Amino acid sequence: MGRLTSRKKVLRIDGDRVVHRPDTLAVEEPLEIRVGGRPLSVTMRTPGDDMDLAAGFLVSEGVISRTDELRGMRFCDGAVVDGLNTYNVLDLELDPSVPALDPSVERSFYTTSSCGVCGKASLDAVRTTTSYDVTGDPVSVTPALLSALPDRLREAQRVFDKTGGLHAAGLFDATGDLLCLREDVGRHNAVDKVVGWALREGRLPLTGCVLMVSGRASFELVQKAWMAGIPILAAVSAPSSLAVELAEEAGLTLVGFLRGTTMNVYARADRVALPHADTSTR
Amino acid sequence: MGRLTSRKKVLRIDGDRVVHRPDTLAVEEPLEIRVGGRPLSVTMRTPGDDMDLAAGFLVSEGVISRTDELRGMRFCDGAVVDGLNTYNVLDLELDPSVPALDPSVERSFYTTSSCGVCGKASLDAVRTTTSYDVTGDPVSVTPALLSALPDRLREAQRVFDKTGGLHAAGLFDATGDLLCLREDVGRHNAVDKVVGWALREGRLPLTGCVLMVSGRASFELVQKAWMAGIPILAAVSAPSSLAVELAEEAGLTLVGFLRGTTMNVYARADRVALPHADTSTR
Repeated sequence: MGRLTSRKKVLRIDGDRVVHRPDTLAVEEPLEIRVGGRPLSVTMRTPGDDMDLAAGFLVSEGVISRTDELRGMRFCDGAVVDGLNTYNVLDLELDPSVPALDPSVERSFYTTSSCGVCGKASLDAVRTTTSYDVTGDPVSVTPALLSALPDRLREAQRVFDKTGGLHAAGLFDATGDLLCLREDVGRHNAVDKVVGWALREGRLPLTGCVLMVSGRASFELVQKAWMAGIPILAAVSAPSSLAVELAEEAGLTLVGFLRGTTMNVYARADRVALPHADTSTR
Repeated sequence: MGRLTSRKKVLRIDGDRVVHRPDTLAVEEPLEIRVGGRPLSVTMRTPGDDMDLAAGFLVSEGVISRTDELRGMRFCDGAVVDGLNTYNVLDLELDPSVPALDPSVERSFYTTSSCGVCGKASLDAVRTTTSYDVTGDPVSVTPALLSALPDRLREAQRVFDKTGGLHAAGLFDATGDLLCLREDVGRHNAVDKVVGWALREGRLPLTGCVLMVSGRASFELVQKAWMAGIPILAAVSAPSSLAVELAEEAGLTLVGFLRGTTMNVYARADRVALPHADTSTR
């Protein structure tokens, strides 16, 4: 629980200077997610906010979409190493109204510290059906507001500067206020933790919100944002081609290369309120 | 085949300057890997070197380890959209001597553009059994040689500067000569492509080699290097705690934060030949 970093003695080489010194590492450990006692998925994650992660994973995969569909969660007593609970096995109890998991889905769930769309056995199953429609979300943000988000995310990251190894996902409202920040060695886990927080807080769908992520925007991150009803996804680095295609299909605003006062808008640019009439720029 | 990038018109915002301009995107598409006609895995990848990717995936997952265990590969004729082969479904024929896949493994294979250890249904199965022992590999490299690798990797990347969205994995020999470079939106895919190239070239195990990757070093990258018999893994950014633990367990040299003339050595530092006696530095 909350073991975000660990210390390790390393050999530091800087030209001719060579020293042994302690270094801080981002912790990566497997989390097994069970539903009703049955193993569903293993994800390589940074421990902490595991209940948010598990809840968000089920939302991202389309298993649940409402707060009352998640009845309870607990770390399994039996997952013990050297007499101590590992806190690496989490069992979820769903409401009986939730349809039983399709065995073909259940048996193929798997995630790692850097993946996200896990759980599909064939090409046809890669796209998860969304529960929320973001196409009509009327939210509008200015470039100045978007430009401020990376610094706000960075400032809010307690761990980043220590390890250099943690990704962050931050949920902001349309005025740029931070609602939730989560970190992980895997970007998709950080997003699942945000989405799970929102489910547990009864905030889904996340209408009018902006999700900001460190690093790239891949297909799976757009999918997760869509599943949570988030209308705007912004990333520090590049999106992939499939991320752009899915954003267009979803009617989701996708911003990439958000650095300083510059950014690229790849889909649904109408939600970015330009500083002056943009007719002159087309 | 080889569709590394695509073009897309984006809205570019730079302070008050707003223009519509074309942007280059890294292509991300699903590849379904079949063995003997049966779906085994779907990975989100950058098209190109798909046969290397599929072969390397099977090596990384411990299914095959010798060149003659892979009898053939072909893109499925039936995977057609608008009358054209998608080149997104690849069928592999293994030698009859290869043990049939454990159904419990087979049914849970799944990878995305940024994951790597896929295919495990429970915590016990996260660690793949390795085929090669790297503990005794006597290779030794200087810090100067390691310091040169990131630039060599970057120079060899034809696509990186165009998209900003592709990861690279480069295999070098102990003199710093580049043997193989592969790129992908997913770092783990880039590594699988290198490993698959080596399998198909009859070069496994990769004794005496250095694998250099862009970005972070996670558990799964150490595992893949180990499965291919690579004794040294170097990364531009941070390793995770589990990556360091696995490297120590494997006897694999793990270098992180390799930038300019600086680097951290996290495991098996004895393979890094220091410029002068290091007794003074301890």
